[in-house]
Amino acid sequence: MYGAGDVRIETVPDARLVEPTDALVTVTHASICGSDLWPYNQMEHNDSGQRMGHEFIGVVEAVGSDARTVKAGDVVVAPFAYSDGTCVFCHEGLQTSCLHGGFWARDGIDGGQGEAVRVPLADGTLVVLPVGKDDALMPSILTLSDVMGTGHHAALAAKVAPGKTVAVVGDGAVGLCGVIAARRLGAEQIIILGRHPDRIALAKELGATDVVSERGDEAVERVRELTGGFGAHSVLECVGYEQSTVTALSIARSGGAVGRVGLPQQESIPKALPTFFNNLTIAGGPAPARAYIEELLPDVLEGTIEPGRVFDRVTNLDGVPDGYRAMNEREAIKVRIEF
Amino acid sequence: MYGAGDVRIETVPDARLVEPTDALVTVTHASICGSDLWPYNQMEHNDSGQRMGHEFIGVVEAVGSDARTVKAGDVVVAPFAYSDGTCVFCHEGLQTSCLHGGFWARDGIDGGQGEAVRVPLADGTLVVLPVGKDDALMPSILTLSDVMGTGHHAALAAKVAPGKTVAVVGDGAVGLCGVIAARRLGAEQIIILGRHPDRIALAKELGATDVVSERGDEAVERVRELTGGFGAHSVLECVGYEQSTVTALSIARSGGAVGRVGLPQQESIPKALPTFFNNLTIAGGPAPARAYIEELLPDVLEGTIEPGRVFDRVTNLDGVPDGYRAMNEREAIKVRIEF
Repeated sequence: MYGAGDVRIETVPDARLVEPTDALVTVTHASICGSDLWPYNQMEHNDSGQRMGHEFIGVVEAVGSDARTVKAGDVVVAPFAYSDGTCVFCHEGLQTSCLHGGFWARDGIDGGQGEAVRVPLADGTLVVLPVGKDDALMPSILTLSDVMGTGHHAALAAKVAPGKTVAVVGDGAVGLCGVIAARRLGAEQIIILGRHPDRIALAKELGATDVVSERGDEAVERVRELTGGFGAHSVLECVGYEQSTVTALSIARSGGAVGRVGLPQQESIPKALPTFFNNLTIAGGPAPARAYIEELLPDVLEGTIEPGRVFDRVTNLDGVPDGYRAMNEREAIKVRIEF
Repeated sequence: MYGAGDVRIETVPDARLVEPTDALVTVTHASICGSDLWPYNQMEHNDSGQRMGHEFIGVVEAVGSDARTVKAGDVVVAPFAYSDGTCVFCHEGLQTSCLHGGFWARDGIDGGQGEAVRVPLADGTLVVLPVGKDDALMPSILTLSDVMGTGHHAALAAKVAPGKTVAVVGDGAVGLCGVIAARRLGAEQIIILGRHPDRIALAKELGATDVVSERGDEAVERVRELTGGFGAHSVLECVGYEQSTVTALSIARSGGAVGRVGLPQQESIPKALPTFFNNLTIAGGPAPARAYIEELLPDVLEGTIEPGRVFDRVTNLDGVPDGYRAMNEREAIKVRIEF
């Protein structure tokens, strides 16, 4: 990406092993993330461009001399952050705070929207899959790199549990995965806040019990009506705008929790909300997708959850620029790239 | 209180039963709260004055016809909010959000810094004590009306647990009770942030293992040094100023939790802090002291905790105005009133 709206397919030097803990991965599946749309709309022009992509599956071509759990030929899924798997935060399951980790497509690290990736800290980062690269479950497995783990993180941060009332703010791919996560964790009522008919229809298929298409104060009013006047026990904030955050904090029941996973576009938690007096818990952040791959993969393999349904468009590498456009114009929910 | 700095002892109409669920309580012990100092510093002059006080113990003189669990002669402690004990929030243990509850010393309700109080919703509000009104444990029991429950709430909101590193921001009575609560819940390291020598000395006796007397960035630096560079798992914000909130959020370890109980003096959670990227949990609010009386009273009766040590001055009703002055000038930590 060279700037807002300017995505190009370029030939770059081949990815190669550098560190002994690296793996070289040929990408077979990747996707465009809602968070890729922030720079797509806002990035200032940069002559040298920036690699893109942080959601991918691939085949290991080669590994460095220190790699132990990953080997050539393995089909692997990568989470949206790389991590060593050995530091104190990785042991606590918070790999996004890994002391030696980082993020794709920055600081000289390859992006996932490309043919090959040098994967740092391969043993800690990659999860070897028990299925082949052409398995029909690949779309759902691909969501474990980010959106499904992120929806699950929002649900955990919002303390979703059996019998709870849950509201999901946002009908994008993360919000839809939040619906899946909420149902998986036993929520009794799942209210989706969104207004795109195709996404809402999918949300209902995935487990949403109620739809609120209003915004702002009217949305708050509607959620209260749907929850006996109290608001939702658990609110998943899956957008990141100030308005969506205000809505999320306003529809939480006293003593409830808001799980934030939408990348915050405002600097502070908005003022003038009764977060303190209502004893709200505000939690969340970048999901430790690496931890959740192991937690959620069995459900994907068994077909208990089908997060791959959030992909409504497939393209090849050349189609990536148009994929950005389609997602940005809300023509597609989420675009998958097959190599 | 008629305005900032203007506390007067006045003769008012006798408290009396009004509703059938009321109790009439003669106050035997009361106290001045740190939160009483906010109006003491900021209240605009008001000709009709405002009742004060929300921490008290007393003897039930009479009850309304619908009272069932409280009867004349009972020695009772009141939490800082009254509550019906029967609504959905009371059943969940969040009595500060009671659908029919409220707070002392406003909206025509008596204050605890007076000789007698009409207690609404007596069965839900009052806890009958198994000891007489002259028991030596009364000071510690009195703290269950607010500060000890509030310190405990901060600790729970901050997820204090065995082996955790805890930082307590503020060395007032609530902060000191936060130290007691953190030790009671098994914290391994308890860092108190404060700079009043008498309070710090008491904090150490109550369980603080480390002291940070710096402020701002230097305090953050010191806490990081004391915690292996990571920050504290659990941070108890026991002040409520913007600066103390910034400090609290800045000294939390990634994946950690901040329990807020200091009455917020700023409107929003401050901006430009890595609360999202560090996956911090922010929780807390007005403590459901009513629930915690039942949880903490056994420990007080057994002498396991001694929160009454936060009182370093005792006065009678006439001494209340000077008690406010003494607390405001940090001459006293917390003032108890004996009738």
